[in-house]
Amino acid sequence: MNNISALKRYQIAKVYRRDNPSKGRYREFYQCDFDIAGQYEPMEPDFEVIKVLTELLDRLDIGTYEIKLNHRKLLDGMLEICGVPPEKFRTVCSSIDKLDKQTFEQIKKELVEEKGLAIETAEKIGTFVEKRGPPLEILSELKKEGSQFMENSGSVVALNELDILFKALEKSKCLDKVVFDLSLARGLDYYTGVIYEAVFKGATQVGSIAAGGRYDNLVGMFSGKQVPAVGVSLGIERVFTIMEQLEKDRNQVIRATETQVLVAILGKDLTLAAELVSELWKAKINAEFKLTKRVMNHITYAKQSGIPWMVLVGESELEKGIVKLKNIEANQEEEVPRKTFVEELQRRINSA
Amino acid sequence: MNNISALKRYQIAKVYRRDNPSKGRYREFYQCDFDIAGQYEPMEPDFEVIKVLTELLDRLDIGTYEIKLNHRKLLDGMLEICGVPPEKFRTVCSSIDKLDKQTFEQIKKELVEEKGLAIETAEKIGTFVEKRGPPLEILSELKKEGSQFMENSGSVVALNELDILFKALEKSKCLDKVVFDLSLARGLDYYTGVIYEAVFKGATQVGSIAAGGRYDNLVGMFSGKQVPAVGVSLGIERVFTIMEQLEKDRNQVIRATETQVLVAILGKDLTLAAELVSELWKAKINAEFKLTKRVMNHITYAKQSGIPWMVLVGESELEKGIVKLKNIEANQEEEVPRKTFVEELQRRINSA
Repeated sequence: MNNISALKRYQIAKVYRRDNPSKGRYREFYQCDFDIAGQYEPMEPDFEVIKVLTELLDRLDIGTYEIKLNHRKLLDGMLEICGVPPEKFRTVCSSIDKLDKQTFEQIKKELVEEKGLAIETAEKIGTFVEKRGPPLEILSELKKEGSQFMENSGSVVALNELDILFKALEKSKCLDKVVFDLSLARGLDYYTGVIYEAVFKGATQVGSIAAGGRYDNLVGMFSGKQVPAVGVSLGIERVFTIMEQLEKDRNQVIRATETQVLVAILGKDLTLAAELVSELWKAKINAEFKLTKRVMNHITYAKQSGIPWMVLVGESELEKGIVKLKNIEANQEEEVPRKTFVEELQRRINSA
Repeated sequence: MNNISALKRYQIAKVYRRDNPSKGRYREFYQCDFDIAGQYEPMEPDFEVIKVLTELLDRLDIGTYEIKLNHRKLLDGMLEICGVPPEKFRTVCSSIDKLDKQTFEQIKKELVEEKGLAIETAEKIGTFVEKRGPPLEILSELKKEGSQFMENSGSVVALNELDILFKALEKSKCLDKVVFDLSLARGLDYYTGVIYEAVFKGATQVGSIAAGGRYDNLVGMFSGKQVPAVGVSLGIERVFTIMEQLEKDRNQVIRATETQVLVAILGKDLTLAAELVSELWKAKINAEFKLTKRVMNHITYAKQSGIPWMVLVGESELEKGIVKLKNIEANQEEEVPRKTFVEELQRRINSA
């Protein structure tokens, strides 16, 4: 961190993961990150990160989603209450983390047979991890008189933090996107406070599309200087998967380019192509050029690329001082003066 | 290239170089690339890449520049004419490439003493490498009757290609940015045709800011399939160096953020901060919030960050149902109703 003790940053870039990725995941992928590091009032940056996440997902406009949220200290408190020995917290957490893919019966078997928990302990975990719902409701349930969580010091810290966070999110009008979920554990060891995972609720099954949390000790592990931090990461490939499916559902072809016009030169005259295409570029029209004597090559290329308009020029057009405008979809051709073809084309594009 | 035999691509990303970089260069840096690969008519993609380069540099609006341009086959032809043995072409080229930093006398010494050329050979090179100027003028000089280049087969190929290229660039109205320069050699071995280098002509000394050329054999070296290609790369850091200097010259401070408003909460009420800042965010005003009882901390922070407006809220403001708007630069404060502070602020920002 080069002596920087506070920063807000975002980054959209390639990142790498070491593990063997499951289907639809890659070792090299694009990620969109937002992080806040530094000393702040309790939940100040946590609120901002979650707010940014909701704004991001709302703006992407890919469909409904929910942000599952939990707190590591509450999770640890829960395991303590259930009688799990501290050295088994992490391994039990990684079992719980599979609850979105497996039934509790399967997890219970794993907890008892593989991780060596007593059946009663596993069953008690079962009663807790089924708690999920509107944040303020679940919070008040966990805080009500006689709740075991209120006698557990770590849990009390967590519940107080969540109280501050939920009230801020409520005032910011985005708490309705959050689901307080005691089964959310998140695999990564370095989280120390609030953890969350955004899950897409639409038809395309991609699992979580964004996730993050508070990692107060991670910077210190590498820099020797403790810098508390909180952040979130969004997986671009998963968002693209959803967007592509949405386009397919609307029967729309995803075009690789935004080219509006193909300057189709019948022959090899690069100078002519340069002249015509430059006039279009100057008018901010997305245009490409192609040199070939065969009209069908031009038309096939335009069709395959989804280019809607062609400007056809051969020797006879040059002699007559005209160019041909071809509307590919309508399969209509007309002659316009060479001198005014840009305006003529612009008018037709704009009125489409 | 994964079986792709033609593509146009651009990329803005980090790249890496292995050599020991000179001052102002880094081993890891951002580069903006544009390349075209595939079979085309002669000079078709070369024209497009250079046109894109001029559009890019014009749009960046950082000041005047020139694109020095040469052709590898012409360079080799020139060395052949001068009597350089083929095995010394590359090493002689790398000497010539230093001509933008050293005098010809220094280069001549290197060519004779280190590279073992005869003095007459070195001096003949000297008469050629001083040729630079408007492309069509230099080209017609090299092509005129009796020119040694017209008797050298590689040079004839190069001159014919340049003829096509220059005419296309002329019709595209960007040939005035190009200087035909027989001393341009470019260090990299893999160039096979046209080579170029964009040099910034303004006050900030950064040397070349973009460079590229045709590399017809490079893809084949790695893929086993020959795919001709041409491209250009622009160094982002160098462009930033120029931009920063321009801002300094205009006495403008470069702000790290675009924050327009600081929501300054006098105390630790995150809920209040969340409420007020969310209203600003919803209205698309760039806002941050800060929690601290000390007014001076808020003001100092706003000044340091160049944030022009503050919304000050403490207990007394809350009780009165108002907030204070502070214009930092004018050092003026006024009270507006809490309920309408967003519109009030927006009006003041827009009228500024």
